[in-house]
Amino acid sequence: MEALAIVTALALVQAVLFAFQVGAARVRHGISAPAVSGHDEFERHYRVHQNTMEQLIIFLPSLWMFGYFIHPYWGAGIGLIFVLSRFMYQRAYIKDPKSRSGAFGVGFMTMAILLLGSIVGAVMRLVASMQ
Amino acid sequence: MEALAIVTALALVQAVLFAFQVGAARVRHGISAPAVSGHDEFERHYRVHQNTMEQLIIFLPSLWMFGYFIHPYWGAGIGLIFVLSRFMYQRAYIKDPKSRSGAFGVGFMTMAILLLGSIVGAVMRLVASMQ
Amino acid sequence: MEALAIVTALALVQAVLFAFQVGAARVRHGISAPAVSGHDEFERHYRVHQNTMEQLIIFLPSLWMFGYFIHPYWGAGIGLIFVLSRFMYQRAYIKDPKSRSGAFGVGFMTMAILLLGSIVGAVMRLVASMQ
Repeated sequence: MEALAIVTALALVQAVLFAFQVGAARVRHGISAPAVSGHDEFERHYRVHQNTMEQLIIFLPSLWMFGYFIHPYWGAGIGLIFVLSRFMYQRAYIKDPKSRSGAFGVGFMTMAILLLGSIVGAVMRLVASMQ
Repeated sequence: MEALAIVTALALVQAVLFAFQVGAARVRHGISAPAVSGHDEFERHYRVHQNTMEQLIIFLPSLWMFGYFIHPYWGAGIGLIFVLSRFMYQRAYIKDPKSRSGAFGVGFMTMAILLLGSIVGAVMRLVASMQ
Repeated sequence: MEALAIVTALALVQAVLFAFQVGAARVRHGISAPAVSGHDEFERHYRVHQNTMEQLIIFLPSLWMFGYFIHPYWGAGIGLIFVLSRFMYQRAYIKDPKSRSGAFGVGFMTMAILLLGSIVGAVMRLVASMQ
C-alpha cells in the first residue's frame, strides 16, 4: 500500500508542477486570468495540464483497485511508467502537438492495463465470494 | 466492496469512451490541438466530456463513502443509475444541448443521494464513536 | 476516518455549489451551452469552478494519505482550512481576479502540507516495513 501511495503522490506532484508551468506561461505571455487563450505556447501548457488532470481522475482509482484486487507492487510499477509517460507527453506536446501520440499511447496503455485489471480482479473476487 | 469497484470501473470506462469521442469529433471536424472550439458538434462532445469529468470527481468519493457508511449494495445500485444517466445525458446533449436537463437531473439526484447519505452516515458514526 | 469523510463531503458540497453558481451566471448573462465565454463575470465563476475541480483531484488523495500515514484529526483540521480558503478564493476572484493570490496561497500551503506529509509518511512506513 505504501508503494501505491508513493506513486499517487508522485502523480499529484507532477500535476502541481504542470499547473505551475501553466501559471508561468500565463505570466510570460501576458495572458490575464480568466482568459485561457491568446498565445500558442500558453495554450499547449494549458492543454497538457487539462489532459493530465482528466487522466488523473481515471488513473488514481484504477491504480488503487488494481493494487487491491491484483497486486500492489505490480500496480505501483505500472503506475510509475504512467507518470513517466506523462512527462514525455508534456515534452512532446510543447515541442509539437502533432508529436504527442507516442507518449500518449504509452500512458494510455498503462492506464488501460490498470483499469481492465481492476475489472477482472473485482469480478473474479465477486464471483468467488458468491460461491 | 467488489460491487463498488465494478461501478467505479464502469464510470471510468465511460469517461474514457467520452474522451475517445472528443478525439474522434476533433478529427472529423479538422480541429487541431490545442484548439477546443471551431465546430458546434465538437464543442458539444467536449462539454459532455468536461462535465462528466467534473461530476466524476464528486461521484467517486461519494459512492465509496456511501458504500462504507451506509450500504455497499445500495451504493452500487444508485451508482449504476448515475452511470446510465450520463449516457442519456450525452445522447441528449449531442442531439440538442437544451434537452439535456432531464438526464442531468437524474444523475444529479443520484449523486446528491450518495453525497448526503455519506454526510449523514459519517456524522452518525462520529457521534456514536464519541459516546 | 469519519472526520476525513466529513471534510471530504464538505469539499464536494462546495464544488457542487460552485458548479451551481456557474450555471446561474450562465443564465444571468444569457450564455447558452456549449459556449464557455462571452461575459467577464461568467468567465470568473467558470474559472473558479475549474480551478476548484483541479485542486480537488490533488486535495482528496492528499487528505486521505495524510490522514492514514500521519494523523486523521490533523489531516481533517488542515483540510478544513483548505475548504475555507477556497471560499475566500472565490470571493476574491469574483471581485477582482488580481486579488486572488492571498486565498490561493493559503489553500496551496495547506494542500502542500497534506501532500508532502503523505510522501514523508508513506516513505517512512515503507522503510520501516523493510527492516
